[in-house]
Amino acid sequence: MEKGPLQRLQEIAAEIADLHSAAALLAWDEQVYMPKAGAPARAQQAATLRRLAHEKLTDPQVGELLEQLAAEHRGDPATDAVAAMLRVMNRKYHQATRVPAALVAAEAKAASAAYHAWLQAREEKNFGPFREPLAEVVKIQVEKAEALGYEDARYDALLDLYEPEMRTAEVAAVFARLKDFLVPMLGRLSEVLDRVDDGILYQEFDEDRQWALTLEACRAIGFDFDRGRQDRSVHPFTTACDMDDVRITTRINRGFLGSGLFASLHEAGHGLYEQGIDPAFRRSPLGSPISLGIHESQSRLYENLVGRSRAFWQFFMPKAAAAFPARLEGVTAEDMYRAVNKVAPSLIRVEADEVTYPLHIMVRFELEQALIQGDLTVDDLPGAFDDAMEAYLGLRPANSVEGVLQDIHWSGGYFGYFPTYTLGTLMSVQIFEAARRDLPHLAADMASGRFIPLREWLREHIHRHGSRFMPQELLQRATGSRLDPQPFINYVEEKYSELYGL
Amino acid sequence: MEKGPLQRLQEIAAEIADLHSAAALLAWDEQVYMPKAGAPARAQQAATLRRLAHEKLTDPQVGELLEQLAAEHRGDPATDAVAAMLRVMNRKYHQATRVPAALVAAEAKAASAAYHAWLQAREEKNFGPFREPLAEVVKIQVEKAEALGYEDARYDALLDLYEPEMRTAEVAAVFARLKDFLVPMLGRLSEVLDRVDDGILYQEFDEDRQWALTLEACRAIGFDFDRGRQDRSVHPFTTACDMDDVRITTRINRGFLGSGLFASLHEAGHGLYEQGIDPAFRRSPLGSPISLGIHESQSRLYENLVGRSRAFWQFFMPKAAAAFPARLEGVTAEDMYRAVNKVAPSLIRVEADEVTYPLHIMVRFELEQALIQGDLTVDDLPGAFDDAMEAYLGLRPANSVEGVLQDIHWSGGYFGYFPTYTLGTLMSVQIFEAARRDLPHLAADMASGRFIPLREWLREHIHRHGSRFMPQELLQRATGSRLDPQPFINYVEEKYSELYGL
Repeated sequence: MEKGPLQRLQEIAAEIADLHSAAALLAWDEQVYMPKAGAPARAQQAATLRRLAHEKLTDPQVGELLEQLAAEHRGDPATDAVAAMLRVMNRKYHQATRVPAALVAAEAKAASAAYHAWLQAREEKNFGPFREPLAEVVKIQVEKAEALGYEDARYDALLDLYEPEMRTAEVAAVFARLKDFLVPMLGRLSEVLDRVDDGILYQEFDEDRQWALTLEACRAIGFDFDRGRQDRSVHPFTTACDMDDVRITTRINRGFLGSGLFASLHEAGHGLYEQGIDPAFRRSPLGSPISLGIHESQSRLYENLVGRSRAFWQFFMPKAAAAFPARLEGVTAEDMYRAVNKVAPSLIRVEADEVTYPLHIMVRFELEQALIQGDLTVDDLPGAFDDAMEAYLGLRPANSVEGVLQDIHWSGGYFGYFPTYTLGTLMSVQIFEAARRDLPHLAADMASGRFIPLREWLREHIHRHGSRFMPQELLQRATGSRLDPQPFINYVEEKYSELYGL
Repeated sequence: MEKGPLQRLQEIAAEIADLHSAAALLAWDEQVYMPKAGAPARAQQAATLRRLAHEKLTDPQVGELLEQLAAEHRGDPATDAVAAMLRVMNRKYHQATRVPAALVAAEAKAASAAYHAWLQAREEKNFGPFREPLAEVVKIQVEKAEALGYEDARYDALLDLYEPEMRTAEVAAVFARLKDFLVPMLGRLSEVLDRVDDGILYQEFDEDRQWALTLEACRAIGFDFDRGRQDRSVHPFTTACDMDDVRITTRINRGFLGSGLFASLHEAGHGLYEQGIDPAFRRSPLGSPISLGIHESQSRLYENLVGRSRAFWQFFMPKAAAAFPARLEGVTAEDMYRAVNKVAPSLIRVEADEVTYPLHIMVRFELEQALIQGDLTVDDLPGAFDDAMEAYLGLRPANSVEGVLQDIHWSGGYFGYFPTYTLGTLMSVQIFEAARRDLPHLAADMASGRFIPLREWLREHIHRHGSRFMPQELLQRATGSRLDPQPFINYVEEKYSELYGL
């Protein structure tokens, strides 16, 4: 029997998914086990897989099948999985075909040059070597945005790659509300920072025992080690080769207990999302998380709403104490709850606490959006970065490594990526509040080590859907409202007022 | 500028090489780190990579380029690397295009069914469930051989897949000479087996210390851990993602010191070959080992000619004793040399010693050749297996798991693979003797831990050439003669006569 257009499209999508899964394993291995000398060959292998996936996606046949199927399948994505699959495939097809091959090649080349220049600039603590290569990256991202198309702001086109259907104006409005709350809040906290002491976290903690403790934490919250694993890497991350093969990584810092534990909880949150996707979506465009924001909502939920809660430490303190009897003798769950929630404004984004982290993101959003819109030049970027840091956080970088050279993202051309960190944080509170409404015993459950009801709630309302719903649709269905910063504002206000006795 | 045909062919070959390298990593990971639940998705990912590589290789464009280039490049492969590359690419192209796609698909399907039937048959200790699926595999291998074509024996077509240009008649003649020597030799040894005691190897040896010792051995012989690594797996193996990224594995047996150490030396021998290939051949058809026999010659050389030599234990005994002071107190290098060379006829191929191993291979060669030629039916196979074991080894399997169900190879359709184990063993002695002629201090060097001269000799004469020369050409260049069982016969006669006081 002749294959129908739907089956033909599904087979192409499955082949593309296989190539992406293979590429995911190559990337995981490169960070975790690959001997360093393997890097040049690995780069070529990964590029070949990416190119083949791109060729398959941009084959004119795909466009024809999509057109043909669009006429036949007019279903509502909310009730019709085929319609949802076609929506996602259409998005990917148009994103891939609108950008000319020459621009894709130029993008890769510029990113590679900028990455090496960034390393050199950091080495020299001097923005100079990064200036020209970054300007080239920005120029190409502008061209890319123009090629992709947009309705209002040029930055929309890039943002949409990471957070489908999100718009610059909405992010700006949400961030403005957040700034109006966080800057004064941080001002109030700054007077009393020494009321919380986290000294207990900064002692020497045996690495093997820390490792065992991170595994215990991941297992407790429901990460399935029969369908996943944890390894060590320099930068923690999560990779899924399949919903039944999810890899998380962590890093252990001998002198700081918080590093490994919270990295593991964060990545396990990502991992639970990947493990929870409906297996019926395997090898289909619906089989991946829908956006970086939703993905980050799951990691932040487990890192912060769970891992930095009183309930979690009521459960976990005895386990930590058993692992480190000498170090943590006499430390109570309440002591630990306070320690892991210390607010400490600093120049370094990745070390930031719940209160200051969004401020770091706002700095980057403001600047990258201005670069793409043409309102800021790369020449003026270092000064603008330092000014913005001072305005948002009250701190001025002493050098460019603490400042404009801090993050890797821009060197790779990832403009539009930063805001998803904070969008995810905001969503995490919305989603956790919705779960709590449905699970009245949630805090008591967590305090006694029962984390499965929460995982099952998330699986039902978020994880299993994969890419079936657009982010805001998914949020609306799960929480009853679209993106809303108010739950996060309330959460921070309440939690930190109480902690710091404001 | 327009790309020439050579450049176009090289680009296709590079893409195929990248796909094979990615597939190699997927296979490595599956054996080493993948959570078991990931197997079904991994199988599909691997199949997709294989199919894409096959599609690229069998593209009619490749045939046209090869024809065009054949007319332009009439060089001698011995002096012209392009001619050598075209020779290898031609072989691969014809192997891939002569077998119809339907047969390739049928082969994969039959192998999968036979593998599961083989597992079931082993479980039941009953050949019955394996009979029909194996008959189907044999039928398909016969069709494949017919499709591939051959001059003399049908089995030649399959043998050639693993050992290019080797012929059944040559293997049969070599094996006949070997049998005439080994069967009486084993008869003489059988009378005096208890003259060598290997009890010291069978004690409890801490696994972590064994692991460290295997790393020390691999490092000593020159395996480069900056361009490779060792991990654990159920069945030891070697995989190369690149000459600068070579992965070996070993297994540690707490109750037997020989298991991990010799597996590591064996795989490191394979690994040295992969690490030694000329980087100029990266991503080209010349960048892989030329045959399984040559590959095995390198592993056997390090496992047996090095690892089971007096010189090696003069160097390594103090290290083993330092790792296990309580277990190996008072054990001398000579004690260890004797222990690791104990001859013990058994029914199990993978546990066989240097003297009996080739006899196991001859049994399988004789039977699989008869199956393919049509001189033996699958119905008659179990009895024929037991009879042959008795004739060659003087032992009769008590059940089919010890007998015809012992190996996985036939279930996967790997007919023509077994002989390469013994071809490699024979070559290993030829090659080692040639090295010894050029390196008069070899034994003294090894006894004092200097293994680099040997590695450099092998790199110069074997490793660096990759697939540049056909196996027998390579052997001729390196040793001065083609395949010859006499050096192995002399080696076994001398070594074991002395050890056993014959």
